[in-house]
Amino acid sequence: MGLVVMKFGGSSVADADKMKVVARKITAKKNAGNKVVAVVSAPGDTTDDLLEMAEKVSANPPAREMDMLLATGEQVSISLLAMTIDAMGEKVVSMTGPQAGITADADYTRAKIRKIDPKKVKAQLAKGNIVIVAGFQAANPKGDITTLGRGGSDLTAVALAAALEADSCEIYSDVEGVYTTDPRAVKNARKLDYLSYDEMLEMAGSGAQVLQARSVEVAKKFGVEIHSRSTFSDNVGTIITSEEKIRRKKMEALLVSAVTFDKNQVKFTIIDLPDIPGVAAKIFGKLAKIGVNVDMIIQSAAVDKKNDISFTVSKQDIKKTQLELDKIAAELKASNVVADENVAKVSVVGIGMRSNAGVAAQMFEILSKKGINIEMISTSEIKISCIVDSTDLTKAVEYLHDGFKLAKKK
Amino acid sequence: MGLVVMKFGGSSVADADKMKVVARKITAKKNAGNKVVAVVSAPGDTTDDLLEMAEKVSANPPAREMDMLLATGEQVSISLLAMTIDAMGEKVVSMTGPQAGITADADYTRAKIRKIDPKKVKAQLAKGNIVIVAGFQAANPKGDITTLGRGGSDLTAVALAAALEADSCEIYSDVEGVYTTDPRAVKNARKLDYLSYDEMLEMAGSGAQVLQARSVEVAKKFGVEIHSRSTFSDNVGTIITSEEKIRRKKMEALLVSAVTFDKNQVKFTIIDLPDIPGVAAKIFGKLAKIGVNVDMIIQSAAVDKKNDISFTVSKQDIKKTQLELDKIAAELKASNVVADENVAKVSVVGIGMRSNAGVAAQMFEILSKKGINIEMISTSEIKISCIVDSTDLTKAVEYLHDGFKLAKKK
Repeated sequence: MGLVVMKFGGSSVADADKMKVVARKITAKKNAGNKVVAVVSAPGDTTDDLLEMAEKVSANPPAREMDMLLATGEQVSISLLAMTIDAMGEKVVSMTGPQAGITADADYTRAKIRKIDPKKVKAQLAKGNIVIVAGFQAANPKGDITTLGRGGSDLTAVALAAALEADSCEIYSDVEGVYTTDPRAVKNARKLDYLSYDEMLEMAGSGAQVLQARSVEVAKKFGVEIHSRSTFSDNVGTIITSEEKIRRKKMEALLVSAVTFDKNQVKFTIIDLPDIPGVAAKIFGKLAKIGVNVDMIIQSAAVDKKNDISFTVSKQDIKKTQLELDKIAAELKASNVVADENVAKVSVVGIGMRSNAGVAAQMFEILSKKGINIEMISTSEIKISCIVDSTDLTKAVEYLHDGFKLAKKK
Repeated sequence: MGLVVMKFGGSSVADADKMKVVARKITAKKNAGNKVVAVVSAPGDTTDDLLEMAEKVSANPPAREMDMLLATGEQVSISLLAMTIDAMGEKVVSMTGPQAGITADADYTRAKIRKIDPKKVKAQLAKGNIVIVAGFQAANPKGDITTLGRGGSDLTAVALAAALEADSCEIYSDVEGVYTTDPRAVKNARKLDYLSYDEMLEMAGSGAQVLQARSVEVAKKFGVEIHSRSTFSDNVGTIITSEEKIRRKKMEALLVSAVTFDKNQVKFTIIDLPDIPGVAAKIFGKLAKIGVNVDMIIQSAAVDKKNDISFTVSKQDIKKTQLELDKIAAELKASNVVADENVAKVSVVGIGMRSNAGVAAQMFEILSKKGINIEMISTSEIKISCIVDSTDLTKAVEYLHDGFKLAKKK
């Protein structure tokens, strides 16, 4: 007996048959004696279809209207899923994000949740209803519909679980949980039983696409335990919880929990920058202003009062970064700006690093032994990332996965 | 200078190009110095697509969830139309029915508007915005989304026009206005300049599909003048207004304003009913209970304490009517129930009938002269309807249209 929040992504509700699979999972959970709140995303390609419609009428649609449009996707999911569950003979009611009491700040397209008033959800649960809530959406203080950005349904689920003080928050997807690395890239990738919030955050930030980073932050803040598992099996997935709890269970943390990678990187180098104070601040300040997120940075030692500076950004930002850097380079009289798209980032993540200093050295050794050149390095308390040539990426991931003994036991 | 409510149906916003035509009409109205509120329906076939999705998951979807689903159609229209207008450089904001302050009773799928609080719409107009409102939808007292039934967007437009005390209410469609009869059936059908609320109501109730009947009732009640016109031309259409105003303008009302027809009819006959009191009440009471709307009724004189009773219903009710009548016939020991689908209704409508008694006689004479047999007759103050064999319908409409001199002047 408990209160369970279950979240299903768009691919899980893409058509009537999949919707029935989801409905059966929800009713089974209810029949096992739980109160159930299910959060769903827009079905399949709906969001892309809506974006395409918008493109046809406007090159630059107002964000408010975009949110009004996109929010219809989840509204279709919740009503159809409620009909499906009703047809199975269970009591059910659907709610949009605003109806479920989710309010956000005044930002459109990537609003932040400000408050959840779960009164109406609780009232429906008390009546014995399964409650289906639209993910990804909220109302702003003016009563406009806003959306929470990519992966916002995860955030809705975790925030609702926190507000309802749910006993568990299950995030369903088409994978069995969180893996030691992407199973599509490395065959003997192993499903992890436990993962800490911080590890999950580092993984989300370095290419793994299982859970949205903001939702993990909220889960950590409110102590919501996330169970990442598959829509299409009954297997236990991966529990994302506090480091303390994991240490208690596992006695000793693994040195490295996972290897992640990100092909969506481009390296920019500004050549022959004058070595005067404030140059870096100027460059990165201007990039921040136009919304470009800079990841890794490396600066060469000055020679003749000039040096080079390299950094990575996401591939989708390549054009506007190039434009801005050309202006900056001209202004600062640097000699050239070079963009290199043939790079990729590979990272190892693990809370074990906190108490073991040798992980970085071990990583560099594994890569160098196999002749893989490291172009840039960055580290955090529980993550080490390297930029390598993109043609080396597959090998790098495999070697690290083997080298840190993450593979499935035979 | 004035406040204009403009309503556009689903076919007017079916794709990006049509949406641009509508957007230009709206901005032109604004640029002529008016405040503009536009009400739109769901684009093209969206509602049918949504109904089909619902069918796939449930044979009998809950009405509440059906409304939640269907309301997404208009939300797509309003946001896309607002984007289109914004791209033309005009200030615009979209609102769902609930956001526009439209509240309805607790009924789903055919809710009745209880109140409109136009505060938010007025505030946006005062800021110089064009306001795009989703037709067909409202919020019920619980905060659920409800819909207003077929043609509900007309009702939204008229009710908003009343609440805003608009100077005019323009209902756009793909026809130029209201015609003396269906121009697809009779080539020389003539567009009417004026029509009274009552005539429009009788026409809507007898097969003409220009305006939804409930919206005309509301227009009559609040004195909202409706201008029915085409999305695809700038011609003046038909003004639907009070009888008094028409008489003032035209000095003398026409005897007959229009000929309408309805092929969606089926005639049931129960044969050899016992002639005892209360039989008719029993039959029609039971049909009302299962939601069947009975139109025309004829009862034969009793012979041997038995008589026949015939009446018409809409074709979509044929199955449930047959099932119910079979039960009733067995119970009352009638000998048989016969359904005749080869019937159609033809009507003449005109406020001139109020002061001229001879219209019915004239109608019967026109039909009989041409050898058309009348199976059933019903009359109201300003309408006479006849049931004829469906193979005679086209001729009947033509003869009446000619006979009452409704054709275009050459």
